[in-house]
Amino acid sequence: MTLDNLTRLKEKRRSERAELDRLLDEELVCTLATVTTDGRPWAVPMFYARDGDRLLLHGSTGAGALRQVAAGSEAVVAVHAIDAIVLATSLFEHSANYRSAVVRGPLVRLTGDDAVAALDRLSDTLVPGRRAELRGHLKTELVATVALALEITDDNWLLKVSDKDVDEELDVIPDDVWTGILPIHRTYGEPVRSPWLPDDLPAPPSVVALRDAGPQRRRQGRGQRSGTNR
Amino acid sequence: MTLDNLTRLKEKRRSERAELDRLLDEELVCTLATVTTDGRPWAVPMFYARDGDRLLLHGSTGAGALRQVAAGSEAVVAVHAIDAIVLATSLFEHSANYRSAVVRGPLVRLTGDDAVAALDRLSDTLVPGRRAELRGHLKTELVATVALALEITDDNWLLKVSDKDVDEELDVIPDDVWTGILPIHRTYGEPVRSPWLPDDLPAPPSVVALRDAGPQRRRQGRGQRSGTNR
Repeated sequence: MTLDNLTRLKEKRRSERAELDRLLDEELVCTLATVTTDGRPWAVPMFYARDGDRLLLHGSTGAGALRQVAAGSEAVVAVHAIDAIVLATSLFEHSANYRSAVVRGPLVRLTGDDAVAALDRLSDTLVPGRRAELRGHLKTELVATVALALEITDDNWLLKVSDKDVDEELDVIPDDVWTGILPIHRTYGEPVRSPWLPDDLPAPPSVVALRDAGPQRRRQGRGQRSGTNR
Repeated sequence: MTLDNLTRLKEKRRSERAELDRLLDEELVCTLATVTTDGRPWAVPMFYARDGDRLLLHGSTGAGALRQVAAGSEAVVAVHAIDAIVLATSLFEHSANYRSAVVRGPLVRLTGDDAVAALDRLSDTLVPGRRAELRGHLKTELVATVALALEITDDNWLLKVSDKDVDEELDVIPDDVWTGILPIHRTYGEPVRSPWLPDDLPAPPSVVALRDAGPQRRRQGRGQRSGTNR
């Protein structure tokens, strides 16, 4: 292994970590997969947020899902984004452009100030700017806040990216069958206000920003890459 | 347990199963969660389709994910849909309207004609009407097709539905803080045609139908229900 090769590998890992972060920052919900105490698989969706080199998962006290997960037990957080459907000339060649990540490691339970900070971070990710529009936390809320954290290390995650155009390998490409890509977007609709509000109270900046952001993903292009770092 | 109660319970289960089916039919991607041979959790996203009382999962030969899963081993298929963000007066009370299902059971590997039929069913779900626009399957494609099936039984699934408006329990509701619901939609964008196609070949009905379908979910309302059947 030459120094050049080592450098190239490091560059590749850094670039894949940047892509991992981008996926994690675009999506809202992950699936938390665990092994129960009797050795069976279990999974539950959770809101999450990336906070630097760790993932924060939100849970309220008494949530059934969190009872399955003993503090320090290993779990997998899986996040995916489907970016487009790829339509080819043969059914078998149909596919999708997607990004998919798993991070595996021990879950750490956050309490007290750490849990409150995690809740703030989760809120800032879900509805940026909303915190500034509200009052501060109540004592009862602080007691009830539970969050989980999972570290992103150098070698406990895997990223798979499928990002291609229609790649016809036929000798003769039929010109009477449409092929191409159909993008898939996440969008926010018109806000629905609570009925008891005064008519002249406008939707706040945090909500308007999400509604007006338009389609959340526009990634289309050629090439298929996968990054394994585990 | 009276006959009336038994009847009511049966009705409730039937109604929850109908809601489970609706969620499974609306979504495209599930997370398959398993336990590896060394007892660790693993998860991977997969396209799926409901086919009556079973789920069909798509996999191509050699897919790393499927190597983790021995035929007959137990797995969990988790599907979720986030329908809206619910914005309240306190950060702690913010939540989301969502639907979430898990189905747990042994995976069955389909081959030959069964696998081909599963592929057809998956395609019909992902892009309805596309099959009619294409040629039939090639022999090589038939050999390469792998699919997995998971039965939906009376007692191996759990459905959680959170579907509420802002429910302020304050004695005095502030009238200067906007609260309400922000719907989240999945939409399809403008199709991007392959560059080698003749200009006068229009986008086909299957693609146009998806693009024109508009937002995929409009479920808003009051009430929180969960159905456990496992």
